[in-house]
Amino acid sequence: MQRFKLTIEYDGRPYAGWQRQDNALAVQQVLEEAFSQLLQGAAVVVQGSGRTDAGVHALGQVAHVDIDADFTAQKLREAINYFLRKVPISVLEVDAVDAEFHARFSAIKRHYIYRILNRRAPPTFNEGLVWHVMTPLDVDLMHAAAQVLVGKHDFTTFRHVHCQAESPVKTLDYLSVERDGDELHIKAGARSFLHHQIRSITGSLKLVGAGRWSKDDLKASLEARDRQALGYNAPPDGLYFRSVEFT
Amino acid sequence: MQRFKLTIEYDGRPYAGWQRQDNALAVQQVLEEAFSQLLQGAAVVVQGSGRTDAGVHALGQVAHVDIDADFTAQKLREAINYFLRKVPISVLEVDAVDAEFHARFSAIKRHYIYRILNRRAPPTFNEGLVWHVMTPLDVDLMHAAAQVLVGKHDFTTFRHVHCQAESPVKTLDYLSVERDGDELHIKAGARSFLHHQIRSITGSLKLVGAGRWSKDDLKASLEARDRQALGYNAPPDGLYFRSVEFT
Repeated sequence: MQRFKLTIEYDGRPYAGWQRQDNALAVQQVLEEAFSQLLQGAAVVVQGSGRTDAGVHALGQVAHVDIDADFTAQKLREAINYFLRKVPISVLEVDAVDAEFHARFSAIKRHYIYRILNRRAPPTFNEGLVWHVMTPLDVDLMHAAAQVLVGKHDFTTFRHVHCQAESPVKTLDYLSVERDGDELHIKAGARSFLHHQIRSITGSLKLVGAGRWSKDDLKASLEARDRQALGYNAPPDGLYFRSVEFT
Repeated sequence: MQRFKLTIEYDGRPYAGWQRQDNALAVQQVLEEAFSQLLQGAAVVVQGSGRTDAGVHALGQVAHVDIDADFTAQKLREAINYFLRKVPISVLEVDAVDAEFHARFSAIKRHYIYRILNRRAPPTFNEGLVWHVMTPLDVDLMHAAAQVLVGKHDFTTFRHVHCQAESPVKTLDYLSVERDGDELHIKAGARSFLHHQIRSITGSLKLVGAGRWSKDDLKASLEARDRQALGYNAPPDGLYFRSVEFT
């Protein structure tokens, strides 16, 4: 039995999120079925580093899988991508790892990016891959305000009511807002995130960028520790799980 | 009657190219029908700066249109995008211009970009929006070789057999090859291009990047002035009409 680390890119549009579930198709299930096909029907569990919601994408989700067959990492990548050829899921890298490696528990930092298309005209190439915001957003105001969220805080305001995390206290390592042409990129990194945390932060920063909220309003919203104090929850469309760092 | 300049973005995947034709749907036709809807059935001609082939995209195609109705540029943009809301065509900018402005004849420089996805794993977000090349390509070799094509040359080798241009002699102002992560970007600018010129150049540069052609092979191919001497014609997928400069 050999454990492999998989770095995975996926377009979240057709999927009900990362995690396998009963009534809808998830990325994890598609991957597990592809591995089963490759391994003549053997049951395979693909363990991810983190869950993503329905419609959320990944540039570098990481997962691990245990395989009882003789594959080099390279061969496994080519073979699994063959079985994924009809779906928008692609295994970018495969590495053979020790049995101690665990995609979820060995992860020490997770990075996300949120893409906002900020222009009047609708998206053409990126429908469902960006959040289309027509109001002009002030990126400098957004970046400055974002800094009040960096560090260790009780993020109850920015947490989905069904979030399963034991504590609402998280340490946000960085939160930046940059403009790249028509797009705004919000980048965030932390050991772990609460459910909807980045979407809730993004929605609130949009209010700041549009001039409807000040930095102090954002701070007050955080300090309220109350979901009712949230400004706005951004849609899943623009969110990408970017990469994971391990011990 | 007021003439308007339109800057247009489109995803070329569903279309038979820019130019209206009898048996397939073209971008020009979709735009003309949208203007007709907006103007209660009036016939409208949308004149583009340049044709694009089936499956080729635009980030900044420019066209002009004459409108016999009272619209500000801003209002016209909002209104036409409403009628384009179900298709991957979007009018980025509208400017009121003099009747002397002509999208095709006033254009003095056209810019294109060709995107190659250069990695083993298949595309997930960009199927049909990039050319997927699995062989590792040497961007420095490609850029260096590209410079033999810059300047005034007889580009017969890099011209489609059905190209309608009077002369195969064109002046290529610049041709650059850069890497951006997994992608290679080939950028080209000229007053005008021959039919398939950039795709033919791209296909040949790919041979250079893969180590199958030297810079001298590329030069010999150019100097042969013979379509049979072409290395390879790249698919339309990765080609984008980027912008146009006017007198």
